Amino acid sequence: MTDNQRFSKEEYLQRIRKTREKMDQAGIQVLLVVDPANMNYLTGYDGWSFYVHQGLLLDMESPEPLWFGRRQDSNGARLTTWLSERSIHGYADEYVQSRYTHTMVFVASLLRELGWGSRRIGVEMDNYWFSARSFMKLREELPEAEFLDATNLVNWVRSVKSPAEIEYMRQAGRICEKVMNLAVDSIQPGLRERDAAAAVAGAQISGTEEYGGDSPAIFPIMPSAERTSTAHLTYHPDRVYQENDVVLLELCGTRYRYHAPLSRTVYLGDPPDDLKKTADVVVRGLEKTLEFIKPGVSAEEVEAFWRSCLAGTGVEKPSRVGYSFGLNYVPDWGEHTISFRPGDKTILTAGMTMHFMPGIWLDTYGFECSEPLLITDEGCETFVAIPRKLFIKGR
Amino acid sequence: MTDNQRFSKEEYLQRIRKTREKMDQAGIQVLLVVDPANMNYLTGYDGWSFYVHQGLLLDMESPEPLWFGRRQDSNGARLTTWLSERSIHGYADEYVQSRYTHTMVFVASLLRELGWGSRRIGVEMDNYWFSARSFMKLREELPEAEFLDATNLVNWVRSVKSPAEIEYMRQAGRICEKVMNLAVDSIQPGLRERDAAAAVAGAQISGTEEYGGDSPAIFPIMPSAERTSTAHLTYHPDRVYQENDVVLLELCGTRYRYHAPLSRTVYLGDPPDDLKKTADVVVRGLEKTLEFIKPGVSAEEVEAFWRSCLAGTGVEKPSRVGYSFGLNYVPDWGEHTISFRPGDKTILTAGMTMHFMPGIWLDTYGFECSEPLLITDEGCETFVAIPRKLFIKGR
Repeated sequence: MTDNQRFSKEEYLQRIRKTREKMDQAGIQVLLVVDPANMNYLTGYDGWSFYVHQGLLLDMESPEPLWFGRRQDSNGARLTTWLSERSIHGYADEYVQSRYTHTMVFVASLLRELGWGSRRIGVEMDNYWFSARSFMKLREELPEAEFLDATNLVNWVRSVKSPAEIEYMRQAGRICEKVMNLAVDSIQPGLRERDAAAAVAGAQISGTEEYGGDSPAIFPIMPSAERTSTAHLTYHPDRVYQENDVVLLELCGTRYRYHAPLSRTVYLGDPPDDLKKTADVVVRGLEKTLEFIKPGVSAEEVEAFWRSCLAGTGVEKPSRVGYSFGLNYVPDWGEHTISFRPGDKTILTAGMTMHFMPGIWLDTYGFECSEPLLITDEGCETFVAIPRKLFIKGR
Repeated sequence: MTDNQRFSKEEYLQRIRKTREKMDQAGIQVLLVVDPANMNYLTGYDGWSFYVHQGLLLDMESPEPLWFGRRQDSNGARLTTWLSERSIHGYADEYVQSRYTHTMVFVASLLRELGWGSRRIGVEMDNYWFSARSFMKLREELPEAEFLDATNLVNWVRSVKSPAEIEYMRQAGRICEKVMNLAVDSIQPGLRERDAAAAVAGAQISGTEEYGGDSPAIFPIMPSAERTSTAHLTYHPDRVYQENDVVLLELCGTRYRYHAPLSRTVYLGDPPDDLKKTADVVVRGLEKTLEFIKPGVSAEEVEAFWRSCLAGTGVEKPSRVGYSFGLNYVPDWGEHTISFRPGDKTILTAGMTMHFMPGIWLDTYGFECSEPLLITDEGCETFVAIPRKLFIKGR
């Protein structure tokens, strides 16, 4: 299958229809999309070119969005998107990381040429790929335009997955199983941490016999020992696993940029009682919560239910315990929309995909056991089949 | 060695002294640093936590900068930085990707508490990690402050490397050699592209016997066939290498987040004459340019010299042909400061590290052969020892 046949054209057009519905609700006439996952979602574009400014322009009537990017990346747009030639606009290299001009000068002139220079323009205000200067420059260049905040507008469209997307996420789940089993099986005292991480990184890409993997939006997070007391450290490049190490594994499989993330914990030796107790409480709470999750309940109700499972156990989990995930690029597989946390009133519906992730980070070690799940018509089902437990590896 | 002993405290203090010199020149009293490479450079902080807002605050007098980040990442700051406990400020999870508040509300209140709320504050305006909303929110919360553009201020300090940094980049060079040799040796007709990419990704992390690798700032870029006609596509997850494929390899070694990038090209079969000719022209031009590069010449003079090597050959390279590189995180190992391109007046000095990267992307294929190099007292030396040629692999 070629890159631009991962989804039918009908599916892309439906995504655009849904995006325009949200634009209409927000009073946005033209949407500037710079998030690479949103660009991929609407057009299929798939390249490691987001380190320079690039994006899509979508109005309310045109048959397709317009892609702009560095000229040397234009062939990437031709190869990976369903867009026609007239919609691909490469800019000259002088706009790249320049001290004299800015890519948004090019974008503003494109908007004026299209007659969109004084429209109500939606921009992704809180996005890695829309810098403060991008916004100031665009505002300066288009004094007649009105700018509206479209942060996560397309992300919200992405939050309910199509059957084709769910199929790719299931394939990512198969890759994730292979990756997690490999990690759990190989980690043992005496092994260099980097060799375990290398095996994981390779397995993420080679995938399964049927399904090739993609590079993940988050590198393998696999800290050991005291490094497990915090959320986002990884393996130590010069360390060897020791007896009585706790090792956290926050890994994923990725298929066509769709993720299936999973966290598990390994103990190398005879685990201390408090870790065993924490593991028991978390796994039991996780399993009860999975039974509770169904369409119609709100995201905050899931968190409240989870918290009620912990009541009286002495285990506390003060941060959010899950988030929406799917298609993504670095630095995050999360979609920045729905969170399992107090105050999130989003009502779960079939087709949403959530990573239920109750990570516990204590003063001296952590414990993680998570599940990526799909909201179904009746409840939820998980994407990955790996036992929910503290993995104990003796001598 | 523990994470916070990668450099001496003296070296960190010198980096801060140099940063303050630049702040002084720009009239900046307080610098907000959000770029993760800049955070690492000044404090050692090293975690995959930049997908939420975090940063440093550096004024002109305090003995050390102040770190702020998500509370669950605070132990990461304790483990990886040289900062004392009083400089580590974790914020509550309610600030994470919230629809009700923003991390910059927390940062503004921190600035006010420190008595810095009405100072001249430098911010990294054109940075992936300083969104448009971050800036608008900070300005709204601190109406008395004056904001100045400090884009790449710390990056410019980073552009001249210390002996300790150069040593890590040399170690990254050893890793890069291993990675590139593995790629060139293994790629052949019949091999699945993803298996070659998996071997590369694993080797980047396992490193050499002496030096453990880190995850790279750019994933392996290794397109084949028509995908080589553009700059930033990678392996195809479902494809097998074919006879007469061109394969581009833009890879790196990474040591403690310091990079040694390298590009090479492989042809599987008997290469067409125009590709052989392009390769000859590029390699000859590259080698002559390496002899030309020395302290005292400007970046644009290097590009002009390179262009003169191409004159009359029929080969054209219209984009910039190199950039400063070193310590970095996704999405780019480039430092966004010095470029080999017309108009860049930066005078090369000893200790600068540049990736000379004359990538050629034609309509149907590309050719890449690059060198990462250190400006020395007399000229330049390369970080990686791999033959400069089109690698031809027959049956």
